[in-house]
Amino acid sequence: MERLYGGIEAGGTKFVCMIGTGPDAILNEIRIPTTLPEETIQQAVTFFKSHARYGQLASVGIGSFGPVDLNPASPTFGHITTTPKLKWSHVDLCGFVQSALELPVAFDTDVNAAAFGEHYWISGNQPLDPFIYITVGTGVGVGVLANGRPLHGLVHTEAGHLAIPHNLQIDPFPGICPYHGDCLEGLASGVALQARWGQTAETMPDGHPGWDLEAEYLALAVTNLIYAYSPLRIVLGGGVVQHAGLLAAVRHKTQVLLNGYIQSPMVLENIEEYIVPPSLGTRSGVLGAIAMAIDLVKSK
Amino acid sequence: MERLYGGIEAGGTKFVCMIGTGPDAILNEIRIPTTLPEETIQQAVTFFKSHARYGQLASVGIGSFGPVDLNPASPTFGHITTTPKLKWSHVDLCGFVQSALELPVAFDTDVNAAAFGEHYWISGNQPLDPFIYITVGTGVGVGVLANGRPLHGLVHTEAGHLAIPHNLQIDPFPGICPYHGDCLEGLASGVALQARWGQTAETMPDGHPGWDLEAEYLALAVTNLIYAYSPLRIVLGGGVVQHAGLLAAVRHKTQVLLNGYIQSPMVLENIEEYIVPPSLGTRSGVLGAIAMAIDLVKSK
Repeated sequence: MERLYGGIEAGGTKFVCMIGTGPDAILNEIRIPTTLPEETIQQAVTFFKSHARYGQLASVGIGSFGPVDLNPASPTFGHITTTPKLKWSHVDLCGFVQSALELPVAFDTDVNAAAFGEHYWISGNQPLDPFIYITVGTGVGVGVLANGRPLHGLVHTEAGHLAIPHNLQIDPFPGICPYHGDCLEGLASGVALQARWGQTAETMPDGHPGWDLEAEYLALAVTNLIYAYSPLRIVLGGGVVQHAGLLAAVRHKTQVLLNGYIQSPMVLENIEEYIVPPSLGTRSGVLGAIAMAIDLVKSK
Repeated sequence: MERLYGGIEAGGTKFVCMIGTGPDAILNEIRIPTTLPEETIQQAVTFFKSHARYGQLASVGIGSFGPVDLNPASPTFGHITTTPKLKWSHVDLCGFVQSALELPVAFDTDVNAAAFGEHYWISGNQPLDPFIYITVGTGVGVGVLANGRPLHGLVHTEAGHLAIPHNLQIDPFPGICPYHGDCLEGLASGVALQARWGQTAETMPDGHPGWDLEAEYLALAVTNLIYAYSPLRIVLGGGVVQHAGLLAAVRHKTQVLLNGYIQSPMVLENIEEYIVPPSLGTRSGVLGAIAMAIDLVKSK
């Protein structure tokens, strides 16, 4: 009997739940609005339990919004911790799913899951380490694989909150991050775009000066991530980056900012293969959760 | 017969060479001025070869200034690559030492070697991963261990060149980095201090406004490194940081910049144990090179 795996991408606006064995073998997938913790998590559990082939599930992976506790030695491992979504603060997401389904559960951030998914399922990515996934949507998040594993530590990478130069002369907007004001997320997230320009990334037209500024801030972020991790590939995804021309502008401005310091053909000549869109589209996170579930069972 | 190990900290102004088995068992140590490559490397080789117990040497570690090529699959592995010290550009430092001594040689950046040394030799550091070493001297360098190994990739971490917010209102100084102007190294290195204020870190008195500015820039760097790597400890060393009070000021300003976003007692309550001076003093690099030599032989 074929083994199946479950994946949950637990986001601040929706939970995506999937049963399958990989990108080409998705058996079922649903989207659940993120409301109250008990309600949303229970709906996810019900999805898995009511599936006709539930008995074949070997394990479940969860990529969650955060911050989350990833320290296996901590009494609050697998909890969402101090999120601004107050109802979800200190919720034991991993434990709830684990005890309800009675299955082994792998747990990580949504962005580490997406990095893991792009790395695990795309054969061209598998030899590339360090490997970075950046998402620019409502917020800005960064997932990192280094030396073969997702990067965890005191908490987990929070590179969406990097301090970057803020061009106050042309951009007096103070930023929207409740903690830092004009950090990367405060300046370049979808929420920041909307607060600054009064329109969303979806409606802001080509040629609007907001796009050049957005490319500049994202290029500063990418440049800092290149200096920090020396990644072999950077996946740049999320709703905001779907705007036509933005990815190309970020590539170009990254080259300008690096200014020849990184003497690698990947940066100097092949930047189209170095900073790339997600190969799994909008499913990097949930397919990453499936990959984590597989990896959990394989590593035991 | 006891095995011995060799270490070389290859710096832009001097090479420190050591024979021994660890911090408490240093048999011999010399400092060689960095002049021409053949001359300096030959002097290092002669030091090891002429040692009475040369026959007991099992391996040698090198922590080198850079950029260096750390890709084992590259034809220029172990070379210094595009350094502004032009005579040292494209010098096969690792290969030269290896063939002259006919011993296995471990090779990494000076800052990764220092991180490795502080982590390997200091028992309190050994369980801490990720683990960061920052040096602020002539330049600014960052070494990183993550998931058990030094972080390598396209090249190696270059977090000394992070883009950070430059407070132009109180600091119109354009920065000294030949590639980026006002990156971290451009604003906060010893060379930048001297260019901005006309005096060195050693002579600049307490209470000079340069120290508050220096603490601010270093705290921005530390904050970004915390967000990028989520390290369990940060060692902050180098000549500039030896100025009394600077480390304490960096700790305080880091807490202010993080603004409660990282809800960890290490940051909120025990920052004196989180951002620490090097336990090995000025020998982190060369003792790290010894540790790399030991690790190389053990891992085979």
